[in-house]
Amino acid sequence: MEHAAWIAVDWGTSNLRVWAIDAAGNAIASHTSDQGMGVLTRDAFEGALLALIEPYLKTGKTLPVLCCGMVGSRQGWAEAAYLSTPCAPADGQNAFHVVATDPRISVHILPGIKQMTPPDVMRGEETQISGYLADNPDFDGVLCMPGTHTKWVHISLGEVVSFQTFMTGEVFALLSQQSVLRHSVSAEGFDSGVFKDALTDAMSRPQSVTAALFGLRAGALVADMSPVAARSRLSGLLIGAELAGARPYWLGQNVAIIGDGGLSDLYRSALQEQGVDAACANVEATTLSGLKSAFETLKETSL
Amino acid sequence: MEHAAWIAVDWGTSNLRVWAIDAAGNAIASHTSDQGMGVLTRDAFEGALLALIEPYLKTGKTLPVLCCGMVGSRQGWAEAAYLSTPCAPADGQNAFHVVATDPRISVHILPGIKQMTPPDVMRGEETQISGYLADNPDFDGVLCMPGTHTKWVHISLGEVVSFQTFMTGEVFALLSQQSVLRHSVSAEGFDSGVFKDALTDAMSRPQSVTAALFGLRAGALVADMSPVAARSRLSGLLIGAELAGARPYWLGQNVAIIGDGGLSDLYRSALQEQGVDAACANVEATTLSGLKSAFETLKETSL
Repeated sequence: MEHAAWIAVDWGTSNLRVWAIDAAGNAIASHTSDQGMGVLTRDAFEGALLALIEPYLKTGKTLPVLCCGMVGSRQGWAEAAYLSTPCAPADGQNAFHVVATDPRISVHILPGIKQMTPPDVMRGEETQISGYLADNPDFDGVLCMPGTHTKWVHISLGEVVSFQTFMTGEVFALLSQQSVLRHSVSAEGFDSGVFKDALTDAMSRPQSVTAALFGLRAGALVADMSPVAARSRLSGLLIGAELAGARPYWLGQNVAIIGDGGLSDLYRSALQEQGVDAACANVEATTLSGLKSAFETLKETSL
Repeated sequence: MEHAAWIAVDWGTSNLRVWAIDAAGNAIASHTSDQGMGVLTRDAFEGALLALIEPYLKTGKTLPVLCCGMVGSRQGWAEAAYLSTPCAPADGQNAFHVVATDPRISVHILPGIKQMTPPDVMRGEETQISGYLADNPDFDGVLCMPGTHTKWVHISLGEVVSFQTFMTGEVFALLSQQSVLRHSVSAEGFDSGVFKDALTDAMSRPQSVTAALFGLRAGALVADMSPVAARSRLSGLLIGAELAGARPYWLGQNVAIIGDGGLSDLYRSALQEQGVDAACANVEATTLSGLKSAFETLKETSL
């Protein structure tokens, strides 16, 4: 086993991912488990972490561990109090020290960011923002971060000025898998023409989206709408409703997307339809970059 | 046990309700079970019905049974093909005869109504419409039928001209019970001031509703929004989005609500905010009235 100088951790609601980082700052290995915050009681976090990083631990030495994500929420390992907008995203100086029982690790959690008006919160995305800004130091504009809860974040002079969360991913999952629409919406497949038409419908008449949803079920029953078309239309309606609501975030703005594969592509094509050419960055690389960047300042202050 | 001349049946996705009707047309008893269409395979419907009406059956006599609702869907006991708009709601002449194995019953199912453009369907509500028209023969205007899938129905000269379904009730249940909002939304309690503010927000800016949803979670986390306020606001946002989408159905129209208790009251107060005074009718009474009215024409034709 190679020697790790520290451990970077992305600990979300559903998953736990760790990277072993060597002294030169390179990730030499990564490991994942399904031990997300959502399935762990407070006293189970340390064990879930140790199970993944045991091979890197040495008796008599303390290995630094820097975490981001829902692990720092009230239901997490320890609550790392939010920073408030406007603010630079978390660096090591704001990290919250968790008292671990195993003397071989020293654990810090990066805080999330809250906004008071309108109320909003993020945990984990602030580290992706740090990473994106570390990789693109002159970036000014808007970051779009598609996912279960998509974030739109206005960045200026290295600070998070404001942000807004849309539950689009979660609503898509609930409607397509648990509502009456599950009978009509496929689990896979995509028709980009149907997606674009639905996107246009939703953006031009956002008030019609709630009415259009049941039309996916009825369309299957009376007009043989295919399950793939229904899936594509549902996606277009929901992303269109989001873009209508997020208009101040992208209209005339410099937009970059931090996201993965398919979903990121959908947002990029949807923005392209509005005349916005968005750059794309990978979530995992950006998260790791943010953790590394925060670790530099953690070294200066806390270790 | 009193003598039943026939059995009226409201058979939805979740529940089965039967009324025993005497020769004078009066309901002498009603019985319910949780044997809704959703939990029954095709060959289990007859048994579920017999379990409730056995006391009224007599050897050597055939008891007429008239059903409405999802029992007539493709996944039901037998498919009763939809009528198409524009049309009068189903009467006995359109009822579909189901071949039962027990010779003591003769079963008919009333058809639902479909609309091709935009695609929409109803099953069960058409019988409530019949009942409402039987009780209010001169009604011209719009029926609002709140529920899991709320229907807005344009009635003219005794016909269903057009209708539109909103999944508001189902979306409310999914968001409040199964999404991340479940941590912030109470199961009970209501603040009508918060409801009205949210209603106004959603109607004036329907595109903001998807953005406002996550604010319920964030408001609880950073601004101590109470679970009752979150519930009231979620309800106001979703009903407001529906009213914004259904505007052509109620603006300047004569509106009557067929619905039960709390939900019906919410729609009535929401419409009142828009200057629309809606009459209210009870679902159960209206359904039974519709089944009785259809039974009159069934007697003329099929028995």
